[in-house]
Amino acid sequence: MCAQYCISFADVEKANTNIQDFIHLTPVLTSSVLNQVTGRSLFFKCELFQKTGSFKIRGALNAIRSLIPATSEGKKPKAVVTHSSGNHGQALTYAAKLEGIPAYIVVPRTAPNCKKKAIQAYGASIVYSEQSDASRENVTKRIMEETEGIMIHPNQEPAVIAGQGTIALEVMNQVPLVDAVVVPVGGGGMIAGIAVTVKALRPSVKVYAAEPLNADDCYQSKLKGELSPNPYPPETIADGVKSSIGLNTWPIIRDLVDDVFTVTEDEIKYATQLVWERMKLLIEPTAGVGVAAVLSQHFQTVSPEVKNICIVLSGGNVDLSSLTWVKQAEMPAP
Amino acid sequence: MCAQYCISFADVEKANTNIQDFIHLTPVLTSSVLNQVTGRSLFFKCELFQKTGSFKIRGALNAIRSLIPATSEGKKPKAVVTHSSGNHGQALTYAAKLEGIPAYIVVPRTAPNCKKKAIQAYGASIVYSEQSDASRENVTKRIMEETEGIMIHPNQEPAVIAGQGTIALEVMNQVPLVDAVVVPVGGGGMIAGIAVTVKALRPSVKVYAAEPLNADDCYQSKLKGELSPNPYPPETIADGVKSSIGLNTWPIIRDLVDDVFTVTEDEIKYATQLVWERMKLLIEPTAGVGVAAVLSQHFQTVSPEVKNICIVLSGGNVDLSSLTWVKQAEMPAP
Repeated sequence: MCAQYCISFADVEKANTNIQDFIHLTPVLTSSVLNQVTGRSLFFKCELFQKTGSFKIRGALNAIRSLIPATSEGKKPKAVVTHSSGNHGQALTYAAKLEGIPAYIVVPRTAPNCKKKAIQAYGASIVYSEQSDASRENVTKRIMEETEGIMIHPNQEPAVIAGQGTIALEVMNQVPLVDAVVVPVGGGGMIAGIAVTVKALRPSVKVYAAEPLNADDCYQSKLKGELSPNPYPPETIADGVKSSIGLNTWPIIRDLVDDVFTVTEDEIKYATQLVWERMKLLIEPTAGVGVAAVLSQHFQTVSPEVKNICIVLSGGNVDLSSLTWVKQAEMPAP
Repeated sequence: MCAQYCISFADVEKANTNIQDFIHLTPVLTSSVLNQVTGRSLFFKCELFQKTGSFKIRGALNAIRSLIPATSEGKKPKAVVTHSSGNHGQALTYAAKLEGIPAYIVVPRTAPNCKKKAIQAYGASIVYSEQSDASRENVTKRIMEETEGIMIHPNQEPAVIAGQGTIALEVMNQVPLVDAVVVPVGGGGMIAGIAVTVKALRPSVKVYAAEPLNADDCYQSKLKGELSPNPYPPETIADGVKSSIGLNTWPIIRDLVDDVFTVTEDEIKYATQLVWERMKLLIEPTAGVGVAAVLSQHFQTVSPEVKNICIVLSGGNVDLSSLTWVKQAEMPAP
């Protein structure tokens, strides 16, 4: 496997050593109500309780720590730069702070104030760009030059993928009888790390991708057998999985992910609110994508022998003031 | 202690035997952010994850099971009746169902639909009354006669108080170095059960009441040294603690509760939202009362030696469609 893909299982084990003292071993919770609804035994891996409110700290911290040579303190990167104002941006800032490195986040002037505030609260410097991709890239490039900083890609950087794989190491210990792991997919960093780990440790365990129908590049890629990015910027409430899978995650997803389940916006909203109401866990809609997949009609075609299912609740960074959709989240028609 | 109060520690131990196989041993979670903010080590007892979404199942189930003589199956009560459409009503219905007893909940015709739906979802029969206290009591009495049912008081019934005390049994095991327990107070069933337990096991551990300023009968009673119910139906977002303490809980609170901390509506909203945002736990505002107390200026007068503080997050039954207050919940001025 090592030669084929951008990471091997050994990289995940190394990542685990790199980061385990700095992150939470997040709990796995269960819900008798959701077991009843789905007819399976569900195990919820609570990455919403992770440092910075999402799993992203795993990859970000592994990437930064991998860049520090073990023997020489002087070779730390001088700064890290990114233009993700979401969970990766927060995680990278937090990880950089742990290592004493400044973080710069490039943000369009027009970004919502709550995002700007969150970035500053985590201690990063905001650098403004115009809204166009060109401006964003120019500003990022300039900041990298000025600060001698490095850019860490949120989902294609191998050290990030290996970091996310540590979730599966924990799941295999916490749910020894697990039959399948369900993972929301955007750029595919999390599912790629998890798939490499699961298939190295126990190849019979299924790895299922969960994806919004409005951002179904992973599904389309698997269907066509070739990397097929979303043709337009997708519109979905699951803002953490708008990215398309990329050159590094695609070969792993192609070979090691057993199936992809797509879900509608209504299904995502319903599943998210169900977890809020019945489990009292404030997941973000992106985490609801995995739950929606297991609740979907398509999932009923999965063999009843796939009984013990672990759903990764990827994060809990919800902008509470934007919850206008809550009232409409009724049970979608099957 | 047995002679003085309506329950003894032995009653709590018996309650624990009665109910422990039917409830969750709820986890205790921590938050580095909230530790930083308060300068203490906080431990959150997550009763929001409890069966029926609140601690109330403990007392309700103990009450129903206490009423079943160990030797004779035939003496089960024929029904249970209550007019609480909140957490106690849901808990009593669930407990009654476990024991195969029908539950009747008396509800004013004008009650919100979401409450009616929740009651029916738990499998109780709704009986309508008019909105007046007189009508409610008449209907309740009639239903008790018709069904040969019994009424279980939500907070003054001794078996309920003993059931709630089991929370403290768990806390003393889960947080062995605990210095204080902070408990929201309405009718006082939970804090009375907890106080009896804590003071029996480790008298040096403080028991603090947390109460909305708008429903401060516990504070007033302690101040005056006599039971002083709220003069009017109080208005507070913490709808689970609108009741006044009563004849059974008052002597325990008078003698065994170390202090009462009152908090404003803004403090409750802020604390609730802080737990949502930073801990990703969907607590109800009533549970936020305890958190608000520990965040309050008054609490800073508590000795720094009271370091390890367990806050009981009493429940998580939030009506999500009513969250119009979320946007306004800014940090209250100190």
